[in-house]
Amino acid sequence: MSVVRLVLASASPARRRVLTEAGITPIVQVSQVDEDALTAELQPIGPAELALALARAKALDVAAHFAGRDDTLVVGCDSVFDLDGIAYGKPLTSDVAIDRIRSMSGRTGHLHTGHWAIRGNRSTGTTTTTGLTFAELSEEEIIGYVATGEPLNVAGAFTLDGHSAPFIRRIVGDPSNVIGISMPTMRDLARDLGLSWPDLWTST
Amino acid sequence: MSVVRLVLASASPARRRVLTEAGITPIVQVSQVDEDALTAELQPIGPAELALALARAKALDVAAHFAGRDDTLVVGCDSVFDLDGIAYGKPLTSDVAIDRIRSMSGRTGHLHTGHWAIRGNRSTGTTTTTGLTFAELSEEEIIGYVATGEPLNVAGAFTLDGHSAPFIRRIVGDPSNVIGISMPTMRDLARDLGLSWPDLWTST
Repeated sequence: MSVVRLVLASASPARRRVLTEAGITPIVQVSQVDEDALTAELQPIGPAELALALARAKALDVAAHFAGRDDTLVVGCDSVFDLDGIAYGKPLTSDVAIDRIRSMSGRTGHLHTGHWAIRGNRSTGTTTTTGLTFAELSEEEIIGYVATGEPLNVAGAFTLDGHSAPFIRRIVGDPSNVIGISMPTMRDLARDLGLSWPDLWTST
Repeated sequence: MSVVRLVLASASPARRRVLTEAGITPIVQVSQVDEDALTAELQPIGPAELALALARAKALDVAAHFAGRDDTLVVGCDSVFDLDGIAYGKPLTSDVAIDRIRSMSGRTGHLHTGHWAIRGNRSTGTTTTTGLTFAELSEEEIIGYVATGEPLNVAGAFTLDGHSAPFIRRIVGDPSNVIGISMPTMRDLARDLGLSWPDLWTST
Protein backbone atom coordinates (compact mmCIF):
# COMPACT_ATOMS: atom_id res chain seq x y z
CA MET A 1 0.00 0.00 0.00
CA SER A 2 1.19 3.47 -0.77
CA VAL A 3 2.02 5.92 2.00
CA VAL A 4 1.30 8.88 -0.23
CA ARG A 5 -1.26 9.25 -3.02
CA LEU A 6 -0.24 11.03 -6.20
CA VAL A 7 -2.71 13.57 -7.54
CA LEU A 8 -2.11 14.30 -11.23
CA ALA A 9 -3.18 17.81 -12.22
CA SER A 10 -3.51 16.83 -15.89
CA ALA A 11 -6.14 15.28 -18.15
CA SER A 12 -3.47 13.59 -20.31
CA PRO A 13 -4.17 9.85 -20.73
CA ALA A 14 -0.51 9.38 -21.76
CA ARG A 15 0.76 10.74 -18.41
CA ARG A 16 -1.73 8.60 -16.52
CA ARG A 17 -0.59 5.52 -18.45
CA VAL A 18 3.13 6.15 -17.73
CA LEU A 19 2.36 6.40 -14.02
CA THR A 20 0.11 3.33 -14.03
CA GLU A 21 2.74 1.24 -15.85
CA ALA A 22 5.21 2.33 -13.15
CA GLY A 23 2.90 1.01 -10.42
CA ILE A 24 1.26 4.30 -9.43
CA THR A 25 -2.47 4.76 -9.99
CA PRO A 26 -2.94 8.52 -9.75
CA ILE A 27 -5.99 10.47 -8.69
CA VAL A 28 -6.67 12.71 -11.68
CA GLN A 29 -7.86 16.22 -10.96
CA VAL A 30 -7.66 18.64 -13.86
CA SER A 31 -6.73 22.24 -13.07
CA GLN A 32 -8.80 25.25 -14.06
CA VAL A 33 -5.75 27.16 -15.36
CA ASP A 34 -6.30 29.04 -18.62
CA GLU A 35 -3.10 27.95 -20.36
CA ASP A 36 -3.47 30.23 -23.37
CA ALA A 37 -4.03 33.31 -21.22
CA LEU A 38 -1.10 32.47 -18.95
CA THR A 39 1.17 31.78 -21.93
CA ALA A 40 0.30 35.17 -23.44
CA GLU A 41 0.86 36.88 -20.10
CA LEU A 42 4.32 35.31 -19.64
CA GLN A 43 5.70 36.34 -23.04
CA PRO A 44 8.53 36.72 -23.90
CA ILE A 45 9.66 33.42 -22.32
CA GLY A 46 11.74 30.46 -23.53
CA PRO A 47 10.18 27.01 -24.13
CA ALA A 48 11.73 25.36 -21.04
CA GLU A 49 10.69 28.21 -18.72
CA LEU A 50 7.19 28.25 -20.20
CA ALA A 51 6.74 24.52 -19.53
CA LEU A 52 7.79 24.98 -15.91
CA ALA A 53 5.55 28.01 -15.34
CA LEU A 54 2.52 26.16 -16.72
CA ALA A 55 3.28 23.03 -14.69
CA ARG A 56 3.59 25.15 -11.53
CA ALA A 57 0.32 26.99 -12.18
CA LYS A 58 -1.56 23.69 -12.70
CA ALA A 59 -0.10 22.10 -9.56
CA LEU A 60 -0.84 25.15 -7.39
CA ASP A 61 -4.42 25.32 -8.63
CA VAL A 62 -5.14 21.68 -7.77
CA ALA A 63 -3.10 21.70 -4.53
CA ALA A 64 -5.52 24.26 -3.09
CA HIS A 65 -7.92 21.32 -2.62
CA PHE A 66 -5.35 19.35 -0.57
CA ALA A 67 -3.93 22.18 1.53
CA GLY A 68 -1.28 21.13 4.02
CA ARG A 69 -1.80 17.35 3.54
CA ASP A 70 1.42 15.36 3.87
CA ASP A 71 -0.20 12.18 2.50
CA THR A 72 -0.78 13.72 -0.93
CA LEU A 73 1.70 14.62 -3.67
CA VAL A 74 0.16 16.97 -6.23
CA VAL A 75 1.94 16.99 -9.59
CA GLY A 76 1.53 19.38 -12.50
CA CYS A 77 3.23 18.88 -15.87
CA ASP A 78 3.44 20.69 -19.16
CA SER A 79 5.24 19.60 -22.34
CA VAL A 80 6.57 21.78 -25.15
CA PHE A 81 8.47 20.71 -28.26
CA ASP A 82 11.34 23.00 -29.20
CA LEU A 83 12.81 23.13 -32.70
CA ASP A 84 15.42 25.86 -33.20
CA GLY A 85 14.26 27.66 -30.03
CA ILE A 86 10.64 27.91 -31.17
CA ALA A 87 8.01 26.23 -28.96
CA TYR A 88 5.44 24.02 -30.64
CA GLY A 89 2.30 22.82 -28.91
CA LYS A 90 -0.47 20.66 -30.38
CA PRO A 91 -0.93 21.13 -34.16
CA LEU A 92 -4.74 20.54 -33.92
CA THR A 93 -5.27 20.44 -37.72
CA SER A 94 -3.92 18.05 -40.38
CA ASP A 95 -2.46 20.86 -42.49
CA VAL A 96 -0.44 22.23 -39.57
CA ALA A 97 0.68 18.71 -38.60
CA ILE A 98 1.88 17.93 -42.15
CA ASP A 99 3.88 21.17 -42.38
CA ARG A 100 5.40 20.65 -38.97
CA ILE A 101 6.39 17.01 -39.56
CA ARG A 102 7.95 17.93 -42.91
CA SER A 103 10.06 20.52 -41.10
CA MET A 104 11.17 17.99 -38.45
CA SER A 105 12.20 15.27 -40.94
CA GLY A 106 15.87 14.37 -40.54
CA ARG A 107 16.42 16.93 -37.78
CA THR A 108 16.99 17.10 -34.02
CA GLY A 109 14.67 18.90 -31.57
CA HIS A 110 14.08 18.95 -27.83
CA LEU A 111 11.08 18.01 -25.76
CA HIS A 112 10.82 19.99 -22.51
CA THR A 113 8.51 18.82 -19.76
CA GLY A 114 8.02 21.08 -16.78
CA HIS A 115 7.22 19.24 -13.53
CA TRP A 116 5.96 20.81 -10.32
CA ALA A 117 5.32 18.80 -7.14
CA ILE A 118 3.62 19.95 -3.94
CA ARG A 119 3.40 18.07 -0.64
CA GLY A 120 1.95 19.76 2.40
CA ASN A 121 3.47 23.23 2.52
CA ARG A 122 6.53 22.31 0.46
CA SER A 123 6.88 22.78 -3.27
CA THR A 124 9.56 21.99 -5.86
CA GLY A 125 9.92 21.74 -9.62
CA THR A 126 12.19 21.43 -12.63
CA THR A 127 12.11 21.19 -16.40
CA THR A 128 13.59 18.04 -17.92
CA THR A 129 14.76 18.01 -21.53
CA THR A 130 15.11 15.08 -23.94
CA GLY A 131 16.75 15.38 -27.36
CA LEU A 132 15.09 13.64 -30.31
CA THR A 133 16.46 12.97 -33.77
CA PHE A 134 13.90 12.27 -36.48
CA ALA A 135 14.44 9.95 -39.43
CA GLU A 136 14.16 11.30 -42.97
CA LEU A 137 10.52 10.68 -43.80
CA SER A 138 8.85 10.03 -47.14
CA GLU A 139 5.73 11.96 -48.16
CA GLU A 140 3.81 8.67 -47.98
CA GLU A 141 4.86 8.26 -44.35
CA ILE A 142 4.03 11.86 -43.42
CA ILE A 143 0.59 11.86 -45.08
CA GLY A 144 -0.18 8.36 -43.79
CA TYR A 145 0.85 9.25 -40.26
CA VAL A 146 -1.19 12.44 -40.11
CA ALA A 147 -4.19 10.48 -41.46
CA THR A 148 -4.08 8.32 -38.30
CA GLY A 149 -5.10 11.44 -36.34
CA GLU A 150 -2.51 10.63 -33.70
CA PRO A 151 -0.32 13.76 -34.04
CA LEU A 152 -3.11 16.34 -33.89
CA ASN A 153 -3.40 16.55 -30.11
CA VAL A 154 0.15 15.99 -28.91
CA ALA A 155 2.92 18.54 -28.34
CA GLY A 156 5.18 18.62 -31.39
CA ALA A 157 3.00 16.39 -33.61
CA PHE A 158 4.58 13.03 -32.67
CA THR A 159 4.56 10.44 -29.91
CA LEU A 160 7.25 8.05 -28.80
CA ASP A 161 4.87 5.16 -28.14
CA GLY A 162 2.54 5.26 -31.14
CA HIS A 163 2.54 5.18 -34.94
CA SER A 164 5.47 7.63 -35.01
CA ALA A 165 7.82 5.46 -32.91
CA PRO A 166 9.68 4.21 -36.03
CA PHE A 167 10.24 7.81 -37.15
CA ILE A 168 12.31 8.78 -34.09
CA ARG A 169 15.77 7.47 -34.75
CA ARG A 170 17.23 8.17 -31.34
CA ILE A 171 16.72 10.08 -28.14
CA VAL A 172 19.16 11.39 -25.58
CA GLY A 173 17.63 11.59 -22.12
CA ASP A 174 14.60 10.09 -20.46
CA PRO A 175 11.90 8.57 -22.69
CA SER A 176 9.02 9.00 -20.20
CA ASN A 177 9.77 12.74 -20.29
CA VAL A 178 8.84 12.70 -23.99
CA ILE A 179 5.52 11.01 -23.23
CA GLY A 180 4.80 13.81 -20.77
CA ILE A 181 6.02 12.96 -17.27
CA SER A 182 9.60 12.01 -16.49
CA MET A 183 9.72 9.16 -14.00
CA PRO A 184 13.36 9.78 -12.89
CA THR A 185 12.52 13.47 -12.45
CA MET A 186 9.46 12.57 -10.36
CA ARG A 187 11.68 10.36 -8.19
CA ASP A 188 14.07 13.31 -7.64
CA LEU A 189 11.23 15.68 -6.74
CA ALA A 190 9.61 13.14 -4.40
CA ARG A 191 12.93 12.76 -2.62
CA ASP A 192 13.27 16.56 -2.29
CA LEU A 193 9.89 16.47 -0.53
CA GLY A 194 10.97 13.77 1.92
CA LEU A 195 9.62 10.68 0.14
CA SER A 196 11.24 7.41 -0.83
CA TRP A 197 9.98 6.28 -4.25
CA PRO A 198 8.33 3.03 -3.04
CA ASP A 199 6.11 5.21 -0.78
CA LEU A 200 4.22 6.09 -3.97
CA TRP A 201 3.60 2.58 -5.33
CA THR A 202 -0.07 1.71 -5.29
CA SER A 203 0.48 -1.67 -6.92
CA THR A 204 3.44 -4.02 -6.69
CA MET B 1 -5.39 -2.27 -44.57
CA SER B 2 -1.89 -3.59 -44.50
CA VAL B 3 -0.21 -4.89 -47.66
CA VAL B 4 2.07 -7.15 -45.65
CA ARG B 5 1.39 -9.01 -42.39
CA LEU B 6 4.10 -9.06 -39.75
CA VAL B 7 4.76 -12.44 -38.15
CA LEU B 8 6.55 -12.09 -34.81
CA ALA B 9 8.72 -15.10 -33.97
CA SER B 10 8.64 -14.30 -30.25
CA ALA B 11 6.37 -14.98 -27.27
CA SER B 12 7.30 -11.64 -25.63
CA PRO B 13 4.19 -9.67 -24.65
CA ALA B 14 6.35 -6.51 -24.46
CA ARG B 15 7.38 -6.83 -28.14
CA ARG B 16 3.78 -7.47 -29.17
CA ARG B 17 2.67 -4.39 -27.24
CA VAL B 18 5.29 -2.11 -28.87
CA LEU B 19 4.12 -3.25 -32.30
CA THR B 20 0.44 -2.90 -31.44
CA GLU B 21 0.96 0.63 -30.08
CA ALA B 22 2.69 1.46 -33.37
CA GLY B 23 -0.37 0.31 -35.33
CA ILE B 24 0.80 -3.17 -36.26
CA THR B 25 -1.05 -6.19 -34.89
CA PRO B 26 1.38 -9.05 -35.42
CA ILE B 27 0.68 -12.72 -35.94
CA VAL B 28 2.61 -14.39 -33.12
CA GLN B 29 4.32 -17.67 -33.94
CA VAL B 30 6.91 -18.80 -31.43
CA SER B 31 9.99 -20.56 -32.80
CA GLN B 32 11.17 -24.01 -31.71
CA VAL B 33 14.79 -22.85 -31.36
CA ASP B 34 16.61 -24.15 -28.28
CA GLU B 35 18.21 -20.86 -27.21
CA ASP B 36 20.38 -22.30 -24.46
CA ALA B 37 21.81 -25.00 -26.73
CA LEU B 38 22.47 -22.50 -29.53
CA THR B 39 24.09 -20.03 -27.10
CA ALA B 40 26.42 -22.75 -25.81
CA GLU B 41 27.26 -23.83 -29.36
CA LEU B 42 28.14 -20.27 -30.43
CA GLN B 43 30.60 -19.56 -27.56
CA PRO B 44 32.82 -17.61 -27.44
CA ILE B 45 30.72 -14.78 -28.89
CA GLY B 46 30.11 -11.15 -27.88
CA PRO B 47 26.71 -9.94 -26.58
CA ALA B 48 25.73 -8.05 -29.75
CA GLU B 49 26.66 -10.94 -32.05
CA LEU B 50 24.84 -13.42 -29.81
CA ALA B 51 21.63 -11.36 -29.94
CA LEU B 52 21.78 -11.27 -33.75
CA ALA B 53 22.50 -14.99 -34.10
CA LEU B 54 19.55 -15.89 -31.84
CA ALA B 55 17.23 -13.47 -33.66
CA ARG B 56 18.24 -14.96 -37.00
CA ALA B 57 17.72 -18.55 -35.82
CA LYS B 58 14.22 -17.73 -34.52
CA ALA B 59 13.21 -15.92 -37.71
CA LEU B 60 14.50 -18.70 -39.98
CA ASP B 61 12.68 -21.36 -37.97
CA VAL B 62 9.33 -19.58 -38.23
CA ALA B 63 9.85 -18.41 -41.84
CA ALA B 64 9.92 -22.05 -42.95
CA HIS B 65 6.11 -21.94 -42.53
CA PHE B 66 5.76 -18.97 -44.89
CA ALA B 67 8.26 -19.99 -47.55
CA GLY B 68 8.55 -17.60 -50.47
CA ARG B 69 5.55 -15.43 -49.47
CA ASP B 70 5.98 -11.76 -50.33
CA ASP B 71 2.94 -10.73 -48.29
CA THR B 72 4.53 -11.80 -45.00
CA LEU B 73 7.39 -10.26 -43.03
CA VAL B 74 8.78 -12.68 -40.46
CA VAL B 75 10.70 -11.01 -37.62
CA GLY B 76 12.90 -12.59 -34.97
CA CYS B 77 14.39 -10.63 -32.05
CA ASP B 78 16.63 -11.32 -29.11
CA SER B 79 17.70 -8.92 -26.34
CA VAL B 80 20.81 -9.07 -24.18
CA PHE B 81 21.94 -6.62 -21.51
CA ASP B 82 25.65 -5.88 -21.50
CA LEU B 83 27.50 -4.50 -18.47
CA ASP B 84 31.28 -4.31 -18.90
CA GLY B 85 31.15 -6.70 -21.87
CA ILE B 86 29.33 -9.44 -19.97
CA ALA B 87 25.92 -10.53 -21.31
CA TYR B 88 23.05 -10.81 -18.85
CA GLY B 89 19.77 -12.53 -19.66
CA LYS B 90 16.79 -13.01 -17.34
CA PRO B 91 17.74 -13.25 -13.64
CA LEU B 92 14.86 -15.73 -12.92
CA THR B 93 15.34 -15.64 -9.11
CA SER B 94 15.05 -12.78 -6.60
CA ASP B 95 18.55 -13.29 -5.21
CA VAL B 96 20.14 -13.02 -8.65
CA ALA B 97 17.99 -9.98 -9.47
CA ILE B 98 18.99 -8.18 -6.23
CA ASP B 99 22.70 -8.80 -6.83
CA ARG B 100 22.46 -7.70 -10.41
CA ILE B 101 20.52 -4.50 -9.69
CA ARG B 102 22.98 -3.58 -6.92
CA SER B 103 25.80 -3.92 -9.45
CA MET B 104 23.98 -1.72 -12.00
CA SER B 105 23.18 1.11 -9.55
CA GLY B 106 24.74 4.40 -10.70
CA ARG B 107 26.34 2.83 -13.77
CA THR B 108 25.94 2.73 -17.55
CA GLY B 109 25.24 -0.44 -19.55
CA HIS B 110 24.04 -1.32 -23.03
CA LEU B 111 20.98 -3.16 -24.24
CA HIS B 112 21.52 -4.99 -27.52
CA THR B 113 18.56 -6.25 -29.52
CA GLY B 114 19.24 -8.43 -32.53
CA HIS B 115 16.60 -8.15 -35.29
CA TRP B 116 16.22 -10.47 -38.26
CA ALA B 117 13.59 -9.94 -40.97
CA ILE B 118 12.62 -12.31 -43.79
CA ARG B 119 10.31 -11.59 -46.73
CA GLY B 120 9.93 -14.13 -49.54
CA ASN B 121 13.45 -15.29 -50.35
CA ARG B 122 15.16 -12.17 -48.98
CA SER B 123 16.60 -11.83 -45.50
CA THR B 124 18.32 -9.03 -43.55
CA GLY B 125 19.24 -8.20 -39.98
CA THR B 126 21.13 -5.99 -37.56
CA THR B 127 21.79 -5.49 -33.87
CA THR B 128 20.72 -2.15 -32.40
CA THR B 129 22.28 -0.88 -29.19
CA THR B 130 20.89 1.58 -26.64
CA GLY B 131 22.96 2.98 -23.76
CA LEU B 132 21.30 3.20 -20.31
CA THR B 133 22.47 5.04 -17.22
CA PHE B 134 20.97 3.88 -13.93
CA ALA B 135 20.29 6.12 -10.96
CA GLU B 136 21.95 5.41 -7.61
CA LEU B 137 19.39 3.20 -5.90
CA SER B 138 18.65 2.75 -2.20
CA GLU B 139 18.37 -0.73 -0.70
CA GLU B 140 14.68 -0.01 -0.07
CA GLU B 141 14.20 0.66 -3.78
CA ILE B 142 16.13 -2.44 -4.86
CA ILE B 143 14.37 -4.83 -2.46
CA GLY B 144 10.98 -3.23 -3.15
CA TYR B 145 11.46 -3.42 -6.90
CA VAL B 146 12.51 -7.07 -6.91
CA ALA B 147 9.50 -7.86 -4.68
CA THR B 148 7.23 -6.70 -7.53
CA GLY B 149 8.43 -9.72 -9.53
CA GLU B 150 8.84 -7.55 -12.60
CA PRO B 151 12.62 -7.95 -13.12
CA LEU B 152 12.77 -11.74 -12.89
CA ASN B 153 11.85 -12.50 -16.49
CA VAL B 154 13.38 -9.62 -18.42
CA ALA B 155 16.86 -9.31 -19.90
CA GLY B 156 19.05 -7.35 -17.49
CA ALA B 157 16.54 -7.26 -14.60
CA PHE B 158 14.83 -3.98 -15.51
CA THR B 159 12.26 -2.58 -17.89
CA LEU B 160 11.88 0.89 -19.35
CA ASP B 161 8.09 0.93 -19.11
CA GLY B 162 7.41 -0.52 -15.67
CA HIS B 163 8.23 -0.06 -12.01
CA SER B 164 11.91 0.51 -12.88
CA ALA B 165 11.27 3.47 -15.23
CA PRO B 166 12.24 6.01 -12.51
CA PHE B 167 15.53 4.17 -11.95
CA ILE B 168 16.83 4.74 -15.48
CA ARG B 169 18.18 8.25 -15.52
CA ARG B 170 18.82 8.51 -19.24
CA ILE B 171 19.17 6.52 -22.41
CA VAL B 172 21.07 7.21 -25.60
CA GLY B 173 19.45 5.55 -28.60
CA ASP B 174 16.05 4.11 -29.35
CA PRO B 175 13.76 3.35 -26.38
CA SER B 176 11.69 0.66 -28.16
CA ASN B 177 14.95 -1.25 -28.64
CA VAL B 178 15.22 -1.52 -24.85
CA ILE B 179 11.69 -2.96 -24.64
CA GLY B 180 12.75 -5.62 -27.14
CA ILE B 181 12.06 -4.51 -30.72
CA SER B 182 13.42 -1.30 -32.21
CA MET B 183 10.79 0.41 -34.34
CA PRO B 184 13.27 2.59 -36.32
CA THR B 185 15.38 -0.52 -36.96
CA MET B 186 12.31 -2.42 -38.16
CA ARG B 187 11.54 0.46 -40.54
CA ASP B 188 15.09 0.24 -41.95
CA LEU B 189 14.87 -3.53 -42.40
CA ALA B 190 11.43 -3.33 -44.01
CA ARG B 191 12.80 -0.79 -46.48
CA ASP B 192 15.75 -3.09 -47.27
CA LEU B 193 13.16 -5.73 -48.17
CA GLY B 194 11.25 -3.41 -50.51
CA LEU B 195 8.53 -2.19 -48.15
CA SER B 196 7.35 1.28 -47.24
CA TRP B 197 6.52 1.46 -43.51
CA PRO B 198 2.79 2.26 -43.97
CA ASP B 199 2.48 -1.08 -45.86
CA LEU B 200 2.70 -2.73 -42.42
CA TRP B 201 0.04 -0.74 -40.58
CA THR B 202 -2.94 -2.91 -39.67
CA SER B 203 -4.70 -0.07 -37.87
CA THR B 204 -4.62 3.67 -38.52
